Amino acid sequence: MRLWNGWGNEDSDLTMELSDGLRALLEALVGPGTALSQATLNEVIAKVPNTRLDDHPQINTDPETRVRHARGQSLPDWLEMHSGNVDTFPDGVAFPESSEQVRELLAHAKENNLIVIPYGGGTSVVGHINPETSDKPVLTIDMAKMNSMLSIDTESQLATFGAGAPGPVVEEELKKHGYTLGHFPQSWELSTLGGWVASRSSGQQSLHYGRIENMFAGGTIETLNGTMKIPTIPASSAGPDVREMILGSEGRMGIITEVTVRITPLPEKEKFQVIFFPSWEIGISAARELIQQRVALSMVRLSNPLETTSLLYMGAGSDSSGVVALEESLSKKGIGEGKVMMTFGVTGSARHCDAAYQLALDHCNGLGGVADESGLGENWAHGRFRAPYLRDPLGAEGYVVDTMETAVDWSKVSEAAENIEQAIRTALDDEGEQVHAYTHLSHVYGQGSSIYTTYLFRIGKSYEQGMNRWMKLKKAGADQIVAHGGTISHQHGVGSDHKNYLTAEKGKLGIAAINSLCEQFDPKGQMNPGKLLPDDKH
Amino acid sequence: MRLWNGWGNEDSDLTMELSDGLRALLEALVGPGTALSQATLNEVIAKVPNTRLDDHPQINTDPETRVRHARGQSLPDWLEMHSGNVDTFPDGVAFPESSEQVRELLAHAKENNLIVIPYGGGTSVVGHINPETSDKPVLTIDMAKMNSMLSIDTESQLATFGAGAPGPVVEEELKKHGYTLGHFPQSWELSTLGGWVASRSSGQQSLHYGRIENMFAGGTIETLNGTMKIPTIPASSAGPDVREMILGSEGRMGIITEVTVRITPLPEKEKFQVIFFPSWEIGISAARELIQQRVALSMVRLSNPLETTSLLYMGAGSDSSGVVALEESLSKKGIGEGKVMMTFGVTGSARHCDAAYQLALDHCNGLGGVADESGLGENWAHGRFRAPYLRDPLGAEGYVVDTMETAVDWSKVSEAAENIEQAIRTALDDEGEQVHAYTHLSHVYGQGSSIYTTYLFRIGKSYEQGMNRWMKLKKAGADQIVAHGGTISHQHGVGSDHKNYLTAEKGKLGIAAINSLCEQFDPKGQMNPGKLLPDDKH
Repeated sequence: MRLWNGWGNEDSDLTMELSDGLRALLEALVGPGTALSQATLNEVIAKVPNTRLDDHPQINTDPETRVRHARGQSLPDWLEMHSGNVDTFPDGVAFPESSEQVRELLAHAKENNLIVIPYGGGTSVVGHINPETSDKPVLTIDMAKMNSMLSIDTESQLATFGAGAPGPVVEEELKKHGYTLGHFPQSWELSTLGGWVASRSSGQQSLHYGRIENMFAGGTIETLNGTMKIPTIPASSAGPDVREMILGSEGRMGIITEVTVRITPLPEKEKFQVIFFPSWEIGISAARELIQQRVALSMVRLSNPLETTSLLYMGAGSDSSGVVALEESLSKKGIGEGKVMMTFGVTGSARHCDAAYQLALDHCNGLGGVADESGLGENWAHGRFRAPYLRDPLGAEGYVVDTMETAVDWSKVSEAAENIEQAIRTALDDEGEQVHAYTHLSHVYGQGSSIYTTYLFRIGKSYEQGMNRWMKLKKAGADQIVAHGGTISHQHGVGSDHKNYLTAEKGKLGIAAINSLCEQFDPKGQMNPGKLLPDDKH
Repeated sequence: MRLWNGWGNEDSDLTMELSDGLRALLEALVGPGTALSQATLNEVIAKVPNTRLDDHPQINTDPETRVRHARGQSLPDWLEMHSGNVDTFPDGVAFPESSEQVRELLAHAKENNLIVIPYGGGTSVVGHINPETSDKPVLTIDMAKMNSMLSIDTESQLATFGAGAPGPVVEEELKKHGYTLGHFPQSWELSTLGGWVASRSSGQQSLHYGRIENMFAGGTIETLNGTMKIPTIPASSAGPDVREMILGSEGRMGIITEVTVRITPLPEKEKFQVIFFPSWEIGISAARELIQQRVALSMVRLSNPLETTSLLYMGAGSDSSGVVALEESLSKKGIGEGKVMMTFGVTGSARHCDAAYQLALDHCNGLGGVADESGLGENWAHGRFRAPYLRDPLGAEGYVVDTMETAVDWSKVSEAAENIEQAIRTALDDEGEQVHAYTHLSHVYGQGSSIYTTYLFRIGKSYEQGMNRWMKLKKAGADQIVAHGGTISHQHGVGSDHKNYLTAEKGKLGIAAINSLCEQFDPKGQMNPGKLLPDDKH
């Protein structure tokens, strides 16, 4: 069973403990943490009010089930669940097993004027699935039981799944036929196909496989106004693309029940390589050149100097002698202070991988890059879903870590990255509180790059203090994102946390257009209200 | 100056005449043509009614200007213009020079309840820019004067143009900086950037450069409800993509005035190669394998047996000895009757081109393909914008040629292509009239392919008979497209000719959603009414 208030499953062997080395490093960076007492599941269950829903054969109103669907995985969610300061719960949770059952539930919701929250893996980090305070009863519809592969067409490289299928099920089913979806967001172990579509997700190897926008070929959406079937068509000039209305709809238009995705034969070969460059600017140029020269990589990730050092030393734990040796060796090759670390990947046929790998190496060497020979690339691949597991052991010692991310054109990358990171780093200066912030480029495009800033700070003396700090950090980072013309989210979505920054990106007419779409499908505003659209929708 | 009733400019040296060989071939295929008398420009000008517009400094109400903006380049347009049977004209034409002037014109239109038709190159083949019969005065806004490059950001590989910039201006301006857009639809010489966005255009090398959806990074749209600015952002998970609402909007939401596109450095090298395969099925497999193996080509085009033979002999004209020799030589290599012709292209750096070219050749050879050594690939590239010029000389001798196109998943390609072509070939059987129809795949995707059928028939004894034949042919082809789950248009758009087939593709809810977007921007239905949306919009 999933942890009720953290990342992963209760029986996972991936629970982590902080090493003494990491603890010492954290103390040095932001000061000693203060462990706070944590609410128990029973304490939170005791806070669940009586349901406002009438009995319904498909709806579970058990308080524990309602607690387990009350929050996602954002930092505010974590703080609320751990402090026990949870004040909204769904009134009930349904687990439909078919599109027909979803239609029945929506008809029931329409008749009884319920609020409906579609629920996939519950991994949202921006408040997508949290119930708002509302006069109306709230029904969460958990898609977990609609998780099968329904059909596969290998000739057209298409497969259809129930929208509740999580990453591992998708890959396991496709693997039986020799295929992969290749969509690996960091939440991959728990997040679902329907959730990826609803939140316009991007995976670690999207440079090869595409973002979910490129994979989503069609599907079925159940709405309060009827069923919408989107047929699979390779490309069309016939008017605005209906797929694009559903992508990023965040449950506001309906419930995605079936998803057809474009699949790819399992790769013959896959390789990840770390390259060090002497400076952030040179690293950025190298990343830009690789993508603009269309070197056929599966990923390019570039850590800035502070992230490079942080990751090397955090990864090393108590014994940093290996890192020291690596740094000495790099230094002899001209890669010293200010160095940055790039990880690139290749995937596909052996012939393709070998050619792309060599082309990438040649480019990097030409720009002063030095290839790692100690297997750091494979280490990255091995640990690439682990970061979320670290939040609980950190939190237990009074530290929290969160991230902010955007994407901007290349001509703005350097300045935006610096200013976002700096704004976050200094956001708690008024409290004299240190924030450790570092940045990487996680996804590159011909036009620009995503910017992903990780920040670590102390919760403080209370969960309330932690929440207050988080709000200051979020605002500081988001204001810089908006000031640099970046998207408020490259890969996490809007939810409730980002909605009031959306007008800067879409414009008033764009917001009004999205609102008109939502109203078309959901005239009374019953579907996931309070998410996606800003409070002032016009 | 543009021809008033045909393709190209009055002083073009690309006007063609039919060779005796082609004339004999046409007679053999569909019978002798009957030349019909053609209306003169003055005869059509004489039919122009008085304008219903009040004087306005920006609006030209001269009858000739109104004739020259009355029709696009569809076959019905051609028949109407040549017969002089034109019954609707815009009441006036404006040629704004700035977004501010467009805003003034829209304010004027709003105040006076005018119909507004945005006009780019006037090259629509589905009735996009034709005025409907209406009680309201019709104002066509021709974007020809907003055709400059406004800015370029080579670091982010972005350039902004006035939306009226036609293909050659776009390429000429970018070339000065060492860049290309790489968007080459067959209408490239005359069609415009704004028109490409409004109609979701696809170019001949879109496999490398992407469709216009992939190139359109942002821009400005003037609507009756205000100005919409879409910022350039490389990728975003922040809700539905506003760009995708404008792409394919066909003038229903507003007038695109500025377009920012993703550009690419001019290629070091470019090559087009023809390969012959022994059969249509083997050719389809080869095309599918090339794309699904992600061989980095710029285009793959595959003619079916009838198109292969037709193109070879039509291209040869009176002296077919070269074709006979080619066929004999191919026959010795096992490529005989039923053979098909593939053209593939590579573009980019020399290193990239050489690798992709060799990989493609290896794949093709492995599937029984034989590479042409007589330069047919370069011939194709040389003549690739010529087909539209052939319509006038054909028409002058009583023949008309038109095309229908769609895209379907690979598992449906073979059957759909056969049934569409066959439906068109037999659509005039009740008149005992021959139709020469042949097909190629023009754009391939991992999931499927476009299908492009060309058909040639005799106008008959009158333009009315020609129009009646065309309607039967269109319906026969479109019904088969719908029956096979294809898009009603992969690259031409919807306009008026395809609008009543759109519900089959988008579903009732999808149509209602698109309609709600149009109403959001244009509550009174003044923008290009009668296009895109089916007559029954809900």
